[in-house]
Order: sequence, then C-alpha cells, then structure tokens
Amino acid sequence: MNWSNKSRGRRGYHHGNLREALVAAALALIGEKGPAGFTFAEAARRAGVSPAAPYRHFRDRDALMADVAQRGFAQFADDLAAAWNEGAPDPVAALDRIGRAYLAFAGREPAYYVAMFESQLPPDCSPDLTAAADRAFGVLRQAAEAVCALLPKAGRPPASMVAFHLWSMAHGIASLFARGDSGRRRLPMPPEDLLEAQVLIYLDGLGLGRG
Amino acid sequence: MNWSNKSRGRRGYHHGNLREALVAAALALIGEKGPAGFTFAEAARRAGVSPAAPYRHFRDRDALMADVAQRGFAQFADDLAAAWNEGAPDPVAALDRIGRAYLAFAGREPAYYVAMFESQLPPDCSPDLTAAADRAFGVLRQAAEAVCALLPKAGRPPASMVAFHLWSMAHGIASLFARGDSGRRRLPMPPEDLLEAQVLIYLDGLGLGRG
Repeated sequence: MNWSNKSRGRRGYHHGNLREALVAAALALIGEKGPAGFTFAEAARRAGVSPAAPYRHFRDRDALMADVAQRGFAQFADDLAAAWNEGAPDPVAALDRIGRAYLAFAGREPAYYVAMFESQLPPDCSPDLTAAADRAFGVLRQAAEAVCALLPKAGRPPASMVAFHLWSMAHGIASLFARGDSGRRRLPMPPEDLLEAQVLIYLDGLGLGRG
Repeated sequence: MNWSNKSRGRRGYHHGNLREALVAAALALIGEKGPAGFTFAEAARRAGVSPAAPYRHFRDRDALMADVAQRGFAQFADDLAAAWNEGAPDPVAALDRIGRAYLAFAGREPAYYVAMFESQLPPDCSPDLTAAADRAFGVLRQAAEAVCALLPKAGRPPASMVAFHLWSMAHGIASLFARGDSGRRRLPMPPEDLLEAQVLIYLDGLGLGRG
C-alpha cells in the first residue's frame, strides 16, 4: 500500500492520508460484502473519519469505486505486461504466461477484480478508469496481434476479435473458478490448466497447431 | 411471476404471498444496486412488510439470496434445455442455439444472472441451489458429450473439460459484454456473433472443422 504523505502537507487533514485510507476501506468492504456492499458513510466509518470527510476527495460513492477499479486495472495491466515481457518472445508461450498472470491477479486480488468487473459503474464515469482498463486490454490486444501475425495473411482473423476471445476465456475462468467464492462446481483440474488447454485448443482452431 | 396463494391459506398472513413478494423485492434491489446492495430490512421495506416479517420464510439474507439464485438457475436451465431440444439434433448447431440462449438469459435477466454468479454465497449454502445449478450445467455437459462423440475415440478430450470450456466462453462474454453495465469496451460485433465465432474456432481446434 502506498501511504504517501502528499495530502497531509497539502490539506493539513488530521488523517495521514484520507484518500488512501478511504480506498483501503472501500477495498476491504468490497472484499467482505461485494461491490455494492458499502455506502460512502461506511467507508468513512471504516477509515475512522466523519461521514462528511470523504467528500474532500470523492464526489460520491461511485467516484470512490471508480478510483478503486482504476487502481486495480493499473496493477492488473502491470502484471499482464510483465508476463508478456518476462520470458521467451514466442507469442504462444507469452500467451500462456499472460493467462497465468490473469488468473493469479483474480485469485490474489478478488476485491479489486470485483471492483473492476462487477461494480456496475456507468461506462464513461471516469476517464482515468477507462485509460487504465485500456492499458490492461492493450496487453491482450498486443498478444492477439502477435498470434495473428503467425498466420498466413489470407483468412487471418481480425486481431481485435481474437483479443476479445482471449479476454473472455480468461475472464470466464477467472470469474467462475479462480476466486474464493466460486466453488459451486468442482473443477477436474486447476483453473490455470483449464485455461491453458482452452487457449491451446483455440489456437489450434486458428491454425496454430502444437505439433 | 407465480403469485400462488399457497402461503396465504397456510399462514393467514395479510400479505398475499410474502415469500414471492420478498423474492421480487430482492431481485429488484439486486437489479438496482448489485448483489450486496440490499439488506434483509430493505427487502422487507420494498415488499411493504415489517423488518421482522422476512424471518417467516428465510433464515437470513443469504437464504433469501440463495432462493433468488436458485430460481434464476431453474429458469436458466429451462432456457438452455429448450435451446438444446428445439431444433436440429446436430450438436454443433445445438451448441450455437445454447450459446444464444445463454447470452439472451444474461441480457434479459441481469439481476438473476448477478445473483447466480456474483452473489458470493458460500458454495454449499443451499442444496436446492446446487441442484438447480447442476441442472443448468448438465445441459452444457450434455452438449459437450455430444460434441466429443463426433471425435475419434483416440485423443478425444474429456467431455467434462469441454463442458467447462463452453461454460467459461459463454460466461466470459455474457459477463463482459452481454449486460447493461458492461460497456467499458466497445465490441466490434454483437456478443452473440463474438461467442459463435469463438466456439467455432474452438471446435475447429478440437478437430470438428467447419468445411
């Protein structure tokens, strides 16, 4: 957590860093109760400040939620980009690393994941959130482009479609199976292996056979 | 809606059918505020009864949520089974019908869908819920078995894995793109077509080429 002291100096508020404390409180409440499980006042109470204090930093509850979701997408984008960059440049291997990083994030940060994907925020509520989400999606898009570049030009599918397919495969498995609350169904294999097999079958279908 | 008169006769409660009214209130609140967006007391208020009245029918808020999710899964299973049965028995065509029925349900019943998949209910909280979810998943499992039966026995993938893949593809697209709140990303095509293309590529990868 980044408990920077910026706002203390600037605002002289008695709480070291109210903005960060509110985000941490919101994240804790989302983790306990889900994305709609807290009010602005509850976040204030959890952060140990008055019910009016959050308005110093956030217009309303949705603005606080958007800030949480944006921070989540920023970390998520960093994780995906690191997975993309960290090993062999072979796109198929890189895609497997991205898939594992995707599921690892969803498993490690379920509250962020929920804020990012299940908070029912209006689509254009925050340009910063949109930019952070774009950056995360950009890694999938880049991976899709690298995969498509391996295919002959004739009949090559649009990379944008492949990117959406990769995203929905990873999100489907992450949200059904890679979170704490998922287990209404027991999986025959770890979610990472389920996703890997799915992506490999899909790549086979694109014409990128394994052997 | 099934406003049966059973409970009126049995309990003599002044509210026609309290149980159904509470479920309807919960569903409306979930639709407005998300799965954690209501308390037991709010559901009572929305249903026009006292805060204590819900305890006549539900142990706690989770039990009410489980009832909502179970009704959702029951309708969902009916829709998927109808799609499976309604047309040509060719498994690939049937799979396409199931995919469309899946997305149609998520789009038409976003509150149910959220209660079913995002309510963070503990896995074994309700045997009735588990049974209803099993019945819905059973349709996907049946479709996966029919698809796998078209493949040569040697190297045939496990139908259970294929069923989980089909589920995660449909859920990924439903939860990212086929709901009101999804649009942080503009799709280049309708979600139904995105899913159809994905399933066809996946089936190609299994060895069920289109032509």
